[in-house]
Amino acid sequence: MARVTEIIGEGWTLMVLREAFLGTRHFNEFERELGIARNILADRLKKLVEAGLMERAASTTDRRVVEYRLTWSGQALFPVLIGLTQWASEHLCDGQASMRFVEKESGREVAPVGVLSADGRPLKLADIAMVAGPDADPSLGARLAKAAER
Amino acid sequence: MARVTEIIGEGWTLMVLREAFLGTRHFNEFERELGIARNILADRLKKLVEAGLMERAASTTDRRVVEYRLTWSGQALFPVLIGLTQWASEHLCDGQASMRFVEKESGREVAPVGVLSADGRPLKLADIAMVAGPDADPSLGARLAKAAER
Repeated sequence: MARVTEIIGEGWTLMVLREAFLGTRHFNEFERELGIARNILADRLKKLVEAGLMERAASTTDRRVVEYRLTWSGQALFPVLIGLTQWASEHLCDGQASMRFVEKESGREVAPVGVLSADGRPLKLADIAMVAGPDADPSLGARLAKAAER
Repeated sequence: MARVTEIIGEGWTLMVLREAFLGTRHFNEFERELGIARNILADRLKKLVEAGLMERAASTTDRRVVEYRLTWSGQALFPVLIGLTQWASEHLCDGQASMRFVEKESGREVAPVGVLSADGRPLKLADIAMVAGPDADPSLGARLAKAAER
């Protein structure tokens, strides 16, 4: 989580990612759409590239133009970003969404992002336990074991 | 998204929320588990209370003790936090998760958080369009319409 905050927690980074999901590719376009200072935008794009969420490459239509594109890792964040937007609409904006997500084919709004069991049943928070993974340090393992007893 | 970053984007806030999900309730316990400076912890808890994600209340077992608990809004963030942790394990930590999420009853790991259609089919990023909601300003509406053409 500390690592996650480092990467996506900085001011503007979520906005830059959203722009990238909207199809923005060029530095000047990010700058214009976001109204962000050039030095801050350059820093955020650099960090997203370093973290492997975006890549910097020559445009396929004009080799002199540099594009920033979401990598596979960056694209894999879309359920989290959709879930966060849905949550914000409901809990920060009284259900007044500035953006809705629909299935292209049907035009129907997608379901609220939730957690499913391995066999596809929706789970509530109370149904879920956190357990230490292979990479956990012993103190986190102890914390999770303590939490499980509550 | 700007509002979301304001609330959960600050350093430590995601860690404080994770602690709260683990069942931590008392200021001193947050401080000890996170190794966080008291003034920063106080600030983050204050902002989470102001944003309606946590509430400050007297302990039910000892009225002299103050507890910080997740509100319903805060609890509703769990799919996003689980999705973010799963994403970080896979994309930042080479699949070495420090934490796994399991269904209590079966002990089986939960499914990766994804986006489903209204009738429950898993959707890929390419299947989804963003459209302006009732609360969108005209410029966002124009942006989304432009993005839809790509």
